[in-house]
Amino acid sequence: MPQPFTTQDFADRMTRAAAAAAAAGLAGLVVTPGPDLVHLTGYRPTALTERLTALLISAGKQPVLIVPKLERPDAEAAPGAAAVRLTDWSDGTDPYRAARELLDPAGRYGISDGAWAMHLLGLQEALPGTAYTSLTAGLPMLRAVKDADELERLAAAGAAADAAYHDILGVPFAGRSENDVAADLAEALRRHGHSQVDFTVVGSGPNGANPHHEAGDRVISEGDTVVLDFGGLKDGYGSDTTRTVHVGVEVPAEVREVHDIVRHAQQAAFEAVRPGIACQEIDRVARRVITEAGYGEYFIHRTGHGIGLTTHEPPYMVEGEQQPLVPGMCFSIEPGIYLPGRFGVRIEDIVTVTEDGGQRFNSTPHDLALVT
Amino acid sequence: MPQPFTTQDFADRMTRAAAAAAAAGLAGLVVTPGPDLVHLTGYRPTALTERLTALLISAGKQPVLIVPKLERPDAEAAPGAAAVRLTDWSDGTDPYRAARELLDPAGRYGISDGAWAMHLLGLQEALPGTAYTSLTAGLPMLRAVKDADELERLAAAGAAADAAYHDILGVPFAGRSENDVAADLAEALRRHGHSQVDFTVVGSGPNGANPHHEAGDRVISEGDTVVLDFGGLKDGYGSDTTRTVHVGVEVPAEVREVHDIVRHAQQAAFEAVRPGIACQEIDRVARRVITEAGYGEYFIHRTGHGIGLTTHEPPYMVEGEQQPLVPGMCFSIEPGIYLPGRFGVRIEDIVTVTEDGGQRFNSTPHDLALVT
Repeated sequence: MPQPFTTQDFADRMTRAAAAAAAAGLAGLVVTPGPDLVHLTGYRPTALTERLTALLISAGKQPVLIVPKLERPDAEAAPGAAAVRLTDWSDGTDPYRAARELLDPAGRYGISDGAWAMHLLGLQEALPGTAYTSLTAGLPMLRAVKDADELERLAAAGAAADAAYHDILGVPFAGRSENDVAADLAEALRRHGHSQVDFTVVGSGPNGANPHHEAGDRVISEGDTVVLDFGGLKDGYGSDTTRTVHVGVEVPAEVREVHDIVRHAQQAAFEAVRPGIACQEIDRVARRVITEAGYGEYFIHRTGHGIGLTTHEPPYMVEGEQQPLVPGMCFSIEPGIYLPGRFGVRIEDIVTVTEDGGQRFNSTPHDLALVT
Repeated sequence: MPQPFTTQDFADRMTRAAAAAAAAGLAGLVVTPGPDLVHLTGYRPTALTERLTALLISAGKQPVLIVPKLERPDAEAAPGAAAVRLTDWSDGTDPYRAARELLDPAGRYGISDGAWAMHLLGLQEALPGTAYTSLTAGLPMLRAVKDADELERLAAAGAAADAAYHDILGVPFAGRSENDVAADLAEALRRHGHSQVDFTVVGSGPNGANPHHEAGDRVISEGDTVVLDFGGLKDGYGSDTTRTVHVGVEVPAEVREVHDIVRHAQQAAFEAVRPGIACQEIDRVARRVITEAGYGEYFIHRTGHGIGLTTHEPPYMVEGEQQPLVPGMCFSIEPGIYLPGRFGVRIEDIVTVTEDGGQRFNSTPHDLALVT
């Protein structure tokens, strides 16, 4: 278990976030429960979020955390609490009144992507002169560049996911359901230190052609190609890796060919990683390989997404994203080809940007592994 | 397992929701993943919600479900999918463009409470003439009145939670940590048919005075008063019940007195339930009992919340809520007294409004049970 982050770590992050907000032309940030709040204060309130909890950050001011009165003891126990001023509101009173006295009535604020619409509407009504932008749109870099401690955690999460993949190659596939294999994967992730399993995709045969298929009661049989995409959180940071395996020893030529194309696309995109390259370029490189091989229409999603306190966050490797890569960014590279009604292939590694290129946090072989 | 809801059930719900929206002066509803979408379509997309999924409902029009292209197969498999028109958008394109062509550019829409702020901001930017209100503010009755099938599920969830409480009275408390007892509670809920455990509060001694304390590593000892508040989902519908127990046979007079006051407050509020009474009146009745006993300042939360597809939803039994009770509404009645640094007491039942009063879905005794 790595050292926990300290109050000073959180205070520093809030100071940097306030400065970044000011530099982005924002009056400040409205941060609600979820990964942004964990990043800035270490506070994870109970999941019953219809009551407003919000951290307000502005350059030059002490951060203020607005909490429901009955959750105040939890908030006070958060590791970053000593660096904020706490203010509470009681059931039956207007939670937006507290915010009204703390926000610039004509300010433009960044707000957490996942803040409840109900709360945003409450702020917009209480402060009609304020304006808002999501953090992904207005301050996408807030959590995108990881520090050394975070990189260490992400590397460890990746290594644990790799260990789970190694384990899963030894379990029987043929004759068992996708759900059975998914349960094995979840157990393996936990065995290797994950506290939370976010997804265990087992897409066998035609189900592999649906990139967001999780796992179902389809019984896997010899001759199936199977997409395995799994990840979760270890010590608070995410893993996410995909490998495609084949059941049995006879691999159809087309499966082999499609797998090779995806492998080349993944490798080409990885080799394109270096500081200064736009995120969309990573997507374009992967897509070009697949398109030139004649399968462009079957690569139906972006090439990747950031990872950190969550398994999906900015930066996104997608057409239109011009954000340049910066050392310390971490994201997936996961091209795929999906042949409807037949099979799918995807290969995914988490990659971090170094001073002069990229480094993988997943190191299991990219070969089409054969399982039984 | 009860019969699953049918496509026709979902179609009927969407028709009723559209009519209710029109009656509330709304141009329609924007429904995003979560309980509203489950209620209206049975669709539970993957939890990776940074991609826009939204159901658009307006009176007199076929409902439209906007989904990310790669999630289309999942959406098509939803039980209510046959009653909606599906439209998809691809990574790298603007998801709000699809909405722009489907919404009235000057309309006022109800939007799911928990819709991501990022998506609401995207709609507000794409359609600057539209206005939005949260469903809790603009259409709180959407899911508040349960039909016979739903009442049956909620009653079964309550009975299962009661069975879990019965089991937990038999486990040892003294010498074990709150986390140990919480794990027993979670196991008991699952054993009695819960597919999801939402919370297992074990607040022993001074921790019981923090109403949102979950469970920690505090070791319970003889003489502790312990608040047990637990619930989750069984067959898709929620349970939520609280009992306060005491470890050992010697109960201090003050614990006994405080427990009696809370019991009387809970009973008085329950007896006040009948159609036409305002929600806030339920809160006032419970609060009056506690205030008159001299403990008003220690009852620091509202008296209750609705329950259904989630364990917290409208209607709220809180000062200021003038919504009259309607037969079929289901909500908690859960007064409490919290003495900081010492102990807390809470008693909670789920109650449904009948034609002429109220009926409890929890029937375990309200006495202060003694555990070992």
